[in-house]
Amino acid sequence: MRQKKYILPESEIPTAWYNIQAIMPNKPLPILNPKSRAVLKPEDLYPIFCEECAKQELDQTNEWIPIPEAVREQYAAYRSTPLVRAYELEEALGTPAHIYFKNEGISPSGSHKLNSAIAQAYYAKQQGITNITTETGAGQWGGSLSYAAKKFGIECAVYMVKTSFNQKPYRRSIMQTFGAAITPSPSMSTRAGKDILTVNPNDPGSLGCAISEAVELALTTPNCKYAVGSVMNHVCLHQTVIGLEAEKQMAMAGEYPDIVIACFGGGSNFCGTAFPFMRHTILEGKKTRFIAAEPTSCPKLTRGKFEYDYGDEAGLTPLLPMFTLGHNFKPASIHAGGLRYHGAGVILSQLMKDGYMEAQDFPQTETFKAGILFARTEGIIPAPESCHAIACAINEAKKCKESGEAKTILFNLSGHGFVDMGSYDKYLSGEMFDYKLTDEELQQYIASADALNK
Amino acid sequence: MRQKKYILPESEIPTAWYNIQAIMPNKPLPILNPKSRAVLKPEDLYPIFCEECAKQELDQTNEWIPIPEAVREQYAAYRSTPLVRAYELEEALGTPAHIYFKNEGISPSGSHKLNSAIAQAYYAKQQGITNITTETGAGQWGGSLSYAAKKFGIECAVYMVKTSFNQKPYRRSIMQTFGAAITPSPSMSTRAGKDILTVNPNDPGSLGCAISEAVELALTTPNCKYAVGSVMNHVCLHQTVIGLEAEKQMAMAGEYPDIVIACFGGGSNFCGTAFPFMRHTILEGKKTRFIAAEPTSCPKLTRGKFEYDYGDEAGLTPLLPMFTLGHNFKPASIHAGGLRYHGAGVILSQLMKDGYMEAQDFPQTETFKAGILFARTEGIIPAPESCHAIACAINEAKKCKESGEAKTILFNLSGHGFVDMGSYDKYLSGEMFDYKLTDEELQQYIASADALNK
Repeated sequence: MRQKKYILPESEIPTAWYNIQAIMPNKPLPILNPKSRAVLKPEDLYPIFCEECAKQELDQTNEWIPIPEAVREQYAAYRSTPLVRAYELEEALGTPAHIYFKNEGISPSGSHKLNSAIAQAYYAKQQGITNITTETGAGQWGGSLSYAAKKFGIECAVYMVKTSFNQKPYRRSIMQTFGAAITPSPSMSTRAGKDILTVNPNDPGSLGCAISEAVELALTTPNCKYAVGSVMNHVCLHQTVIGLEAEKQMAMAGEYPDIVIACFGGGSNFCGTAFPFMRHTILEGKKTRFIAAEPTSCPKLTRGKFEYDYGDEAGLTPLLPMFTLGHNFKPASIHAGGLRYHGAGVILSQLMKDGYMEAQDFPQTETFKAGILFARTEGIIPAPESCHAIACAINEAKKCKESGEAKTILFNLSGHGFVDMGSYDKYLSGEMFDYKLTDEELQQYIASADALNK
Repeated sequence: MRQKKYILPESEIPTAWYNIQAIMPNKPLPILNPKSRAVLKPEDLYPIFCEECAKQELDQTNEWIPIPEAVREQYAAYRSTPLVRAYELEEALGTPAHIYFKNEGISPSGSHKLNSAIAQAYYAKQQGITNITTETGAGQWGGSLSYAAKKFGIECAVYMVKTSFNQKPYRRSIMQTFGAAITPSPSMSTRAGKDILTVNPNDPGSLGCAISEAVELALTTPNCKYAVGSVMNHVCLHQTVIGLEAEKQMAMAGEYPDIVIACFGGGSNFCGTAFPFMRHTILEGKKTRFIAAEPTSCPKLTRGKFEYDYGDEAGLTPLLPMFTLGHNFKPASIHAGGLRYHGAGVILSQLMKDGYMEAQDFPQTETFKAGILFARTEGIIPAPESCHAIACAINEAKKCKESGEAKTILFNLSGHGFVDMGSYDKYLSGEMFDYKLTDEELQQYIASADALNK
């Protein structure tokens, strides 16, 4: 019988995360204080983040960061996640390509987000923090932090984008089941929220606004820190456990990927999957293509601009050098809520600029079509975000069919879609639409970032 | 680092199912033709079931039934399922007991039901069947058969109990995503459905009625067979893959269970988990307690009667010798839809009668309380059905705390609850109620079975 899955024994769960900053030919530009424009030092981030996370954020020296034993112990509840050979998807496509996927959907919260949530909750607990707060869009990150906080005995408060709060009651319930307090954002609990609701009482909310609210809560609450689900360097660092495991598992299968694919929101899933492989490209010149799959309606890598911008809507975060659509970008209401963010991580933005990776964009109906084919062949209903990676993998596998090349394709299945069935319903009933940003809209949004770079 | 999970290599996925009928001290009473009262032979079941399933149903001779290689290949997409040591639940309870659970929730359909769906779809395909039909209550079985049928290229039609169809749109969407056609039951597509709707156009449906509709469709459609998700012997047989794996995995952990627990609807999950261990009790006198955890509102084992009864409401099935509440039993609207069935499997009913197993009942609020503790400690949100097994395991673990005994407890986590968050919502908001059957109601329902045994 052909081998379908590759699973590592718990003893082989990685003992260190991989910090690609240490080997980058061109280091990322510095993160800046938005007022003084001074280069940020770790201690400047201490009011918002845990100290250990702040240090990791700016560490450009240490190639390997040890994973604390208590974090590995929590990882063991679901790691290693399986590396699966998608034989039946290959057969359905008639491609000579070998398609592998890493299934992060089996985590307690249903996605890869937990890999960093556990680390951040652990560091908070170590530092004596009692309360932690964050924002969530689709709910994947909020669910992960809710669970991780509970495991380390910390109280968790989540600002959930109001449209998601209403549209995704199951996500809210998951967070509550894990014991977190959930507030729809914008809310009257913060200055940032009040300012928005004063102008528009029916504001549907955005990730940028929810971030502003959570950061404000952390800054104004004793013994409370903010935890972040993507974009930031330390989050991408924690996610490298995905790629490090995948590297070992691909070796078990006797293969090395020609193409590595992940969907792209802020970067945590992409970076976590790609960086461990990309180190062999940087250090040894291995020829691997790295593709970020993003929504056509939120094309920060394919159509955005590399410049300094805020990470949030209200401008409370430091200035980040990154590909951005502008911090006042209003994303279309696509179902892949986790990809509706205006910016890209600092490290990968530099790597993108330097040609180590590429990006492709996909309209949402194409991604759901791909997701349904995947469900019917490989048996897993993917999260709408993950459908982007699948659509990209299918595209590349079809190219292999045309060229006759048996390339090895690896993609990360970042999460399952059991809580997103309402979106599948829309697709199956023909009520799903595609959105494309006009050049005019794009210029208008990017102007909000341009204004910070004069 | 302590070992958390035990996973078998794919080569050790069992190659045969375990047929406990072959070693039972008292064989089950025969299944009867409802009209003639003649003892049923396999060929009498051919109009409804695939031939191979009909043969397995009545096989009292062969202890091991080989698992076809094509079925094992489909199993490999998710099997072995992990055996997990619930260290953190143990710590939360302060119990000296060792608690293990088998996690069937990681299957593509989210529950153990897929183990039999794959087998039944395979045998149908082998026999040249083109269409398969079934009923579903909570949707776990329907989702499993939808997926399995797609894998073997068969069309699948599911009758879904109307209340579930309306209350659980996500379950419906999962089935549609896997490519099945779904009809709310009662429907106008069958005589059985029409008869009910003619009397009461707003009838909310029941599992018994949905079975009647699916069986009628199979009997009246060329090249179409009926597949069944629980109760029947061949279904329990297919589920023994759970216990057979668990036995190997417990051995990896250096343990053997003192207590084996599973929730109880019709028996497939309980039998699949317990029978492989129970064979050592029957053959070697091993002392293990086997506990079926059922809802207080649907107490077929704790308060039902052992006698012949129909498997469905309309009386289309053969007469089964089993513990029953009467085939016209109307279950309360508890959230564990998969446990709302009036009867128990024939084999386990005999084993229950012969003292090899016991049953305990749990009110639904207690089960959700247990499920939430489990989610917050072990990270998995359990299906409402599985919450019954957890409540039972917690009870037994608490007894160990009192007595100071370090017993080894194994339970089957039959499925995850990601699609049941609406039920958790009800619990968390204090809007969940308990139901208890009065003696008067019980007698009234059982009278419908008594009438068949005069």
